[in-house]
Amino acid sequence: MSYDDLAGLRITVTNGVATATLDHPPLNLVDGVLLPSLRGFINRVRRDPDIRVVVFDSADPGFFSAHGDMAYLTDPEALPAATAAAIAAAPDMPVPDDWNILQVLSEEVRSLPQVTIGKIAGYARGAGNEFLMNLDMRFAAIGRSGQAQPETIMGILPGGAGTVNMARLLGRERALEVILGGQLVDAELAERYGLVNRALPADEIDAFVDRLARRIARLSPEVVAAVKATVETITPKVPHHAYATENGFLYSLFTEDLVASAHKQLAAGVQTREGERDLEGIYDSL
Amino acid sequence: MSYDDLAGLRITVTNGVATATLDHPPLNLVDGVLLPSLRGFINRVRRDPDIRVVVFDSADPGFFSAHGDMAYLTDPEALPAATAAAIAAAPDMPVPDDWNILQVLSEEVRSLPQVTIGKIAGYARGAGNEFLMNLDMRFAAIGRSGQAQPETIMGILPGGAGTVNMARLLGRERALEVILGGQLVDAELAERYGLVNRALPADEIDAFVDRLARRIARLSPEVVAAVKATVETITPKVPHHAYATENGFLYSLFTEDLVASAHKQLAAGVQTREGERDLEGIYDSL
Amino acid sequence: MSYDDLAGLRITVTNGVATATLDHPPLNLVDGVLLPSLRGFINRVRRDPDIRVVVFDSADPGFFSAHGDMAYLTDPEALPAATAAAIAAAPDMPVPDDWNILQVLSEEVRSLPQVTIGKIAGYARGAGNEFLMNLDMRFAAIGRSGQAQPETIMGILPGGAGTVNMARLLGRERALEVILGGQLVDAELAERYGLVNRALPADEIDAFVDRLARRIARLSPEVVAAVKATVETITPKVPHHAYATENGFLYSLFTEDLVASAHKQLAAGVQTREGERDLEGIYDSL
Repeated sequence: MSYDDLAGLRITVTNGVATATLDHPPLNLVDGVLLPSLRGFINRVRRDPDIRVVVFDSADPGFFSAHGDMAYLTDPEALPAATAAAIAAAPDMPVPDDWNILQVLSEEVRSLPQVTIGKIAGYARGAGNEFLMNLDMRFAAIGRSGQAQPETIMGILPGGAGTVNMARLLGRERALEVILGGQLVDAELAERYGLVNRALPADEIDAFVDRLARRIARLSPEVVAAVKATVETITPKVPHHAYATENGFLYSLFTEDLVASAHKQLAAGVQTREGERDLEGIYDSL
Repeated sequence: MSYDDLAGLRITVTNGVATATLDHPPLNLVDGVLLPSLRGFINRVRRDPDIRVVVFDSADPGFFSAHGDMAYLTDPEALPAATAAAIAAAPDMPVPDDWNILQVLSEEVRSLPQVTIGKIAGYARGAGNEFLMNLDMRFAAIGRSGQAQPETIMGILPGGAGTVNMARLLGRERALEVILGGQLVDAELAERYGLVNRALPADEIDAFVDRLARRIARLSPEVVAAVKATVETITPKVPHHAYATENGFLYSLFTEDLVASAHKQLAAGVQTREGERDLEGIYDSL
Repeated sequence: MSYDDLAGLRITVTNGVATATLDHPPLNLVDGVLLPSLRGFINRVRRDPDIRVVVFDSADPGFFSAHGDMAYLTDPEALPAATAAAIAAAPDMPVPDDWNILQVLSEEVRSLPQVTIGKIAGYARGAGNEFLMNLDMRFAAIGRSGQAQPETIMGILPGGAGTVNMARLLGRERALEVILGGQLVDAELAERYGLVNRALPADEIDAFVDRLARRIARLSPEVVAAVKATVETITPKVPHHAYATENGFLYSLFTEDLVASAHKQLAAGVQTREGERDLEGIYDSL
């Protein structure tokens, strides 16, 4: 199967392992380019019998993905356009009325027959981290990774499956802290909170993930399917209404104030490489 | 809103953050004084639009709260009197027949619209720790905090929502260890077991909690409500029957032997400042 | 009650604590000898009022239990024979049609009125680790313990309650990593992943477990029963269909290829003391 047409996403396949590298400068924003490419890739790879494992990483050492495009707030056309493009990228897949496109993508990632692994060696905030939380496993590079949901500071909630997945992975107490506090979670804390499987030394993470991916790629697909389905009996998928609740709240919080605030954030440096290095500092200063 | 009439509880409000300081010497016992004050505070603050975050801490550097009053065991009038006073402190709130007053308080704390944070810099045992486990977040001071449920050694079970909450927070295996072992859990172990969000250096915990509380207090109440309600779809509240089961067992264990044993414990130094410094040692010696 | 007739299992009783020591050289395989003895012990001790706590450990410093007998794969008579012997060891206990005998044993261990504690100071793989995961608590010796489920590399899944229990204890992400990666989990990682309660220094684990077991043995059985039943309201037992699903997949994966592969593994040193010291290395080389 060919994956050459996916803007912002580079796919390489070796021994049954596909590496999907986010390569969409300057910040790997989850925007009208990357969102359709991700959805297109996921729904194509689902039917690719040659691929057993998918590793998601980033071409940018500083950022896995900065977050969703701020234009979703400042430009009323941006989110509908990105959504339409993402729907067109996998036209035969159902899109429930009461879920948004990021939530749809979440369930599509989670239900892949392949095993998915996230490698986090830069910052992943907002929609970038929301995407990561759907993967089967996540590994973070000590001293380099940082994960955060800054949405509440902006006046919304993580609405692309992020509030739901934080609660699922971290439990109520730590999910509330991370979502409402909005601060960056480094690799070691992410491991202690269950946001990643493990924090690994930055110079070992590539080899570790590579070995794990190859091992799993050598397993028979029947075994992987049996394990995934049995695990599912104990840790079932997110109920439909959970995403619908999250999505309902997200739309209820889209107000005029939000647009004004987004413009102020952009003026202060949000969504620039310089500003994103200390996004939390910018928000504290506003 | 005024909070000046709450015996044993000092409330200060700054920038939307209420700090509720347990100040009921000598041991911050959850007794006929503190229990009604806590319930009165919680059900008054619920309707206070000026307060967005509540931090619970202690005026006593050695103890957050020693535990429930031993008089509940030795004096047949004490528990009914404390319960009646607590009911009177929030007369319009429902009190289910099959729950005890500490369990009622637990659900009232958990259902606050505000975000609640516990700061643990001394010992919190028994009912003191049971209260803490209902808060949205908890932080413990390294080298100073200690949490325990010594009830099983006394011949009962943690019955003020404590057995239920230990299972909810720690999982079956660690909950059984902490409840049946009855030993003090220090800050680092509390973090590893999920009994607190994080263990923090004792000289940093105040600033950390203060910053977090201020940040959350700046969020819009709509955002906080949306996050709490969405998290609730994944980590739902404790089912009614769980507390009822716990309460049923608690009452089934109130026996004559228990009264005799309580007198022996008091004679050995339980419920004195000196004795409470090594309560586990006293129990081992009995 | 007498426990002298249990081949491969040594039982000593002191102050209400039974220590069940796996002593079935050369590898404490869960085979046609040890499986019936374990089941017989568990269903006898259930009715022994003199025993309040059961500690499971191993006479072999290198191995808690290597895994299930490879003969289950290479000899078509071995598994039926072991199952029949295990059924005969507790003939009055029900054996559901859609569960295998290891899953039956799992639920029998979990439902004991006594408190069960596992002490892991050597390697526990496959069925050996599956057994451990049913105990109420587990403690692992730093530098000595290692736990793994190598089944997927062999072409099956952990089918003796292991896939289900990994998901229950570790959550979806870490369960998938451990089951599909098949690598040894050392004591510290086991603690961080929730596979054991705690990792303890190898020279302290005996005293720690001994103190904890004695403390619990001094509690009244009514208190222990009340705590266990209340904890169960929050962390309920595994649903019947979860084990049935796991067992269904296990049998669907028993193929001719599996037998051929098992012979190759045995030839490479699997199920020898030397080979089991680096089982993962053998599998990587095959």
